[in-house]
Amino acid sequence: MKIRIKIEYDGTRYSGWQKQDGADTIQGRIEKAIQIITGKETEIFGSGRTDAGVHALGQVAHFETEKNIMPEKIKFAINQHLPEDIRIIQSESVNADFHARFDVKRKVYLYRIQVGKIRRPFERYRSYFVRGELDVEKMRKAANSFVGEHDFSSFKSEGSSAKNFVREIFYIRIEHHQDIITMEFCGNGFLYNMVRIISGTLIDIGKGKDYDIDSILKAKDRRLAGPTAPAHALYLKEVKYDDLFEL
Amino acid sequence: MKIRIKIEYDGTRYSGWQKQDGADTIQGRIEKAIQIITGKETEIFGSGRTDAGVHALGQVAHFETEKNIMPEKIKFAINQHLPEDIRIIQSESVNADFHARFDVKRKVYLYRIQVGKIRRPFERYRSYFVRGELDVEKMRKAANSFVGEHDFSSFKSEGSSAKNFVREIFYIRIEHHQDIITMEFCGNGFLYNMVRIISGTLIDIGKGKDYDIDSILKAKDRRLAGPTAPAHALYLKEVKYDDLFEL
Repeated sequence: MKIRIKIEYDGTRYSGWQKQDGADTIQGRIEKAIQIITGKETEIFGSGRTDAGVHALGQVAHFETEKNIMPEKIKFAINQHLPEDIRIIQSESVNADFHARFDVKRKVYLYRIQVGKIRRPFERYRSYFVRGELDVEKMRKAANSFVGEHDFSSFKSEGSSAKNFVREIFYIRIEHHQDIITMEFCGNGFLYNMVRIISGTLIDIGKGKDYDIDSILKAKDRRLAGPTAPAHALYLKEVKYDDLFEL
Repeated sequence: MKIRIKIEYDGTRYSGWQKQDGADTIQGRIEKAIQIITGKETEIFGSGRTDAGVHALGQVAHFETEKNIMPEKIKFAINQHLPEDIRIIQSESVNADFHARFDVKRKVYLYRIQVGKIRRPFERYRSYFVRGELDVEKMRKAANSFVGEHDFSSFKSEGSSAKNFVREIFYIRIEHHQDIITMEFCGNGFLYNMVRIISGTLIDIGKGKDYDIDSILKAKDRRLAGPTAPAHALYLKEVKYDDLFEL
């Protein structure tokens, strides 16, 4: 049967999602745990990669198993063989034709910033520290220029196999509570480093730098956009499919 | 001049506040940092100890220095020589007769619990995990029995030099948001492990166990109270003095 799992992880000490020889990865850890409980080498298919240091609150993956176990209980069995910074928070059986990557309808990412004069200890692996303040209203205005369907070539890094650079962003929500600013990005898909480059650009704008987002989008030139914001402040929050696989 | 500092720390990897030979402690780290910037061996006096693993959002300490530096700027200088899990968040000069420990009027502690079926990765060093649910209403009712002036001998561990076991608790506030339950304790002082033993008792009550708090207080017998809840979920939130040293 085909099993779909939802995963939360603190990516701090991992070399990202994707299995690689000699590297400690989320996918590698979960596959090893599944092998322990099923006795079979098993490949899992994620909704997409996350880079080294990036976190997830709701990564999704699927795998096949013959193991006779209730799908809803598999999460507890796998969790027993995972380190405590990775947890399967949901598991269930899905149709044989479901694919965690190809069936994605929407993805939601969070980028988390701490502003102020002093970096708070509890935020050190959880958010990007910006000394001083950011002009959140200016950031919100600029964020609107990204919403809609665009060719995001100016906002991607090299290193992905994507050939079509058009993506649709449904919304970018920027919230400010005390010294934490969160930017939530919802789109039908994101290019390599796209969220981090848009985040880096919006942070620059919040600091007072000017960018003409419309022109940068049109130019299809990565050099015109802002810097790639650090990985440790990025969270894959949710992956949405056609069905109601949502917590 | 006499300087008062307010400190935030993630206590996870420290052997507590108090300096000890051969142990990595918060006090030891801060004294070393002050010595680097002042060139003089300096003792700092905290509002009280915190145990290994316990965190602080607002520990307070004082020290003397001849160094010619603006008191409000000292925090930045010290922070440059501290690991990022310890931060001085406030510094100022105080009257020569101020004492961080003897002048305490109120202390506020937080005890943080995550409930549910699956331990969340991001909570693993931040809260105590209770599998299942807790009856928060029952906990709130029981908490009321601790409020006021009592001899708390039944709710302390051995190992402190205190000789008078009467303390006053001004309030215990229990809040529940999603899967996080926080218990906030405000009192004129707390005995060794007192917050953790009251927390352990209230958690037992939330699980359905019965305790007659009034009788246990009267009995002055530690064995009648609940277990000492783990250190890594406890936060020294605030220390209050007569003046307005508050953020």
